[in-house]
Amino acid sequence: MAEQTEFPFDVIADDEYTRLRALYEPLTESMRRLIDVGLRTGVDAAEIETARAAIDAAAEVLGGVRHDTTSTLRHADTGRPLAWANPAVGLRNPIAPPMHITHEPGGGCWAEFTLGAAYEGPPGLVHGGICALMLDHILGEVASDGLTKSLFTGTITLRYLRGTPLGRVRAEAHVDRTEGIKTYARGHLADAAGRTVEAEGVFIMPAWARPGGRASA
Amino acid sequence: MAEQTEFPFDVIADDEYTRLRALYEPLTESMRRLIDVGLRTGVDAAEIETARAAIDAAAEVLGGVRHDTTSTLRHADTGRPLAWANPAVGLRNPIAPPMHITHEPGGGCWAEFTLGAAYEGPPGLVHGGICALMLDHILGEVASDGLTKSLFTGTITLRYLRGTPLGRVRAEAHVDRTEGIKTYARGHLADAAGRTVEAEGVFIMPAWARPGGRASA
Repeated sequence: MAEQTEFPFDVIADDEYTRLRALYEPLTESMRRLIDVGLRTGVDAAEIETARAAIDAAAEVLGGVRHDTTSTLRHADTGRPLAWANPAVGLRNPIAPPMHITHEPGGGCWAEFTLGAAYEGPPGLVHGGICALMLDHILGEVASDGLTKSLFTGTITLRYLRGTPLGRVRAEAHVDRTEGIKTYARGHLADAAGRTVEAEGVFIMPAWARPGGRASA
Repeated sequence: MAEQTEFPFDVIADDEYTRLRALYEPLTESMRRLIDVGLRTGVDAAEIETARAAIDAAAEVLGGVRHDTTSTLRHADTGRPLAWANPAVGLRNPIAPPMHITHEPGGGCWAEFTLGAAYEGPPGLVHGGICALMLDHILGEVASDGLTKSLFTGTITLRYLRGTPLGRVRAEAHVDRTEGIKTYARGHLADAAGRTVEAEGVFIMPAWARPGGRASA
């Protein structure tokens, strides 16, 4: 049931994963650095034009061959989607901090990551919507057992206890309970001084992923 | 009261705003294009290295002079923070789609924007956490009257009605009611076929922004 999915997945072996990761991760890191310095640059118009020309040249090179399958690769050993393009955890997506999520044998999961200037809302604090993005993702990961089950967010509620300072952040999530097609997950963000945002979400198995779902859909 | 804020703001005149916008917006657009093609590139390792060198060169140029005040500029005419670095609406932040939010005279606000590959969760659909980011932001904008009031998200609840397809998306928000220090806002995301995600949030005036708040804080 968990493997029955509407989306086609290609399987990728570990050595190929390792090779591609070594290829793409430095590229993404360079883009993250670019975003960070670009946000705060105070160079003059001529230098901005120089930088922009270099960025356009890079985009021209990268655009030479286009693949549209990055989000549908599944690791041969873990069975988990790579989610390379994912805006919360994707190692090919510079929008993602990224969160590197650890799945504990007991079922909970956690990640520690750094949120810099690009994630700022109020001065010095993480944008509340970025907190929501991180929590929605990690609750979804724990509810779907590392994205191996087909689940969609039904509802999610976020309670902001205080501002989350930019810098090192920890996210945690666990499954509270499962009732039929609904999985209830809870989690939070925290800094060194404790929790900043709490979340609870209900994740729902879509009709097409339920036993007999395809026939009755 | 609305103008009493913990954060220092510099005022920027309209002509200077226009000049800087013309300077920075094309740079951000170039970075957005780079992110988009980078996610889906299938070029070989040598070409990725060429692109990465160009990106690093651009970052080197932009890093020559650093300003840390982008988030604290306030437009002279509207009194609104520019929020240039904001990850939902910032025109200097390539993480933001961006949302260009229109504030209606009656108090509601809306934005139409395009979410491409960088915002994908399930194949072909917007990541649920990105929906949360957009809705948290637009609810906060309407509750705070275009960020001119000092309010923080207290709680926000998102109800996912169905997946939001990548592409053109509309976000709307309005204030439901205000009770003392609490402002209740509602909103939704929609595609051409109707609503995809609904949100309600409670936004709270921090102690330091309330009448007499500084003395009693």
